[in-house]
Amino acid sequence: MAYQLHYWPTIQGRGEFVRLALEAAGAAYVDVARGDEHRGQGMPAMARYLDDPSVARPPFACPFLVDGRRVIGQSAAILLYLGPRLGLAGKSEADRLWTHQIQLTIADLVAEVHDMHHPIASSLYYEQQKHEAARRSVDFRTTRLPKFLAWFEAVLQRNRRNAGRGMPRLVGSRLSYADLSLFQLVEGLRYALPKAAGKALRKTPRIIQVRDGVAAHERVAAYLASDRRLPFNEEGIFRHYPELDG
Amino acid sequence: MAYQLHYWPTIQGRGEFVRLALEAAGAAYVDVARGDEHRGQGMPAMARYLDDPSVARPPFACPFLVDGRRVIGQSAAILLYLGPRLGLAGKSEADRLWTHQIQLTIADLVAEVHDMHHPIASSLYYEQQKHEAARRSVDFRTTRLPKFLAWFEAVLQRNRRNAGRGMPRLVGSRLSYADLSLFQLVEGLRYALPKAAGKALRKTPRIIQVRDGVAAHERVAAYLASDRRLPFNEEGIFRHYPELDG
Repeated sequence: MAYQLHYWPTIQGRGEFVRLALEAAGAAYVDVARGDEHRGQGMPAMARYLDDPSVARPPFACPFLVDGRRVIGQSAAILLYLGPRLGLAGKSEADRLWTHQIQLTIADLVAEVHDMHHPIASSLYYEQQKHEAARRSVDFRTTRLPKFLAWFEAVLQRNRRNAGRGMPRLVGSRLSYADLSLFQLVEGLRYALPKAAGKALRKTPRIIQVRDGVAAHERVAAYLASDRRLPFNEEGIFRHYPELDG
Repeated sequence: MAYQLHYWPTIQGRGEFVRLALEAAGAAYVDVARGDEHRGQGMPAMARYLDDPSVARPPFACPFLVDGRRVIGQSAAILLYLGPRLGLAGKSEADRLWTHQIQLTIADLVAEVHDMHHPIASSLYYEQQKHEAARRSVDFRTTRLPKFLAWFEAVLQRNRRNAGRGMPRLVGSRLSYADLSLFQLVEGLRYALPKAAGKALRKTPRIIQVRDGVAAHERVAAYLASDRRLPFNEEGIFRHYPELDG
């Protein structure tokens, strides 16, 4: 049975980290909220899991994955679950936990990217907090972003099990969902903050190699060229507001 | 061999969620950064894991756990690892993942509590962003806090495997690390925002029952009365700034 992914239908957002894993693995899945209401899909199908009191283990928010009777929320937890099933995580407990730990750190950075344009409240428009956003963006560009990227670069550099191979990997010597997420992070940062990301990424050549390798992955490349890949826009996590780019 | 917990020595912070699990289980552990430098502990021991390029899988930040050769960062990932080992998570994959999902949602709320007093930058003092903090606190108190607490209450209410028992549990019918973390959340919220938390918690009687049950747990009670339990203060995640309490 196909996996059901539930996420906002018009943005990449946090759902994209899950979409990329499903696409890279060639897994059968339905992007439910983008489907037809007359076929039991669309937003009402997603809302049911969030609002219906008969759901015993409700997700707090989307994205969430439905696999048979299982309902799994939190993007990093979804990938923890899917990783071994899709061949995108190592076999050992140590490798799986390490891949997950990297993913959680990516999720932390994603949350900071979001809060850069929404430092006061998600429930307010950007225009209602753009002065605070401008202030926050300074710290993000100069402190937080370089710190996170330096860590990912160090993880790639210190990956002994991949030493001597051409393509850097975050965990072991095979592609993992963490590599896919790092690709998405670079794409999003380049869209949102082309100047700041360009500058920061000049110091992290291994991250760029991972990004380029994922972009060239056959199934990922086909996905990126398809209309299943939504474009970045100013409703998602990665938003291009030039005034936040320094 | 005793677990090594590495975390800032003067605050509860994110490390406290791990401490509570270790304490509730009666596990042998060393709170490394609070130990004696002359015995190889203290802050230098913690800093080594963060800074030494020979650490193959470095944590991004503390808290992190060292168990033999394993180094595990991210508080929720540490608890995912410790849960089954300490008897604080269910045996099935589904239960473990659900417990973890709840923990990740608690971690999201903890991050929002932190950013309430630091909406612009962690690297700045509260006094440098108190106007923005006051603005953010309105949304936190009126929108975010009630939404999170309503979700935890719903999770407790819908836990069918615990139906008819006296003590609510987040997962199954036994104490899990998620219950311990919910206790810590209530304690922190009551310290930081006594008025707002008091008001919000009046609508969530099951959360209060979990809190009271954990506080009465024999080993937890002994821990809370010991000097191993650091007091809340204005350096940690949960800070009492009356002007943010409405």
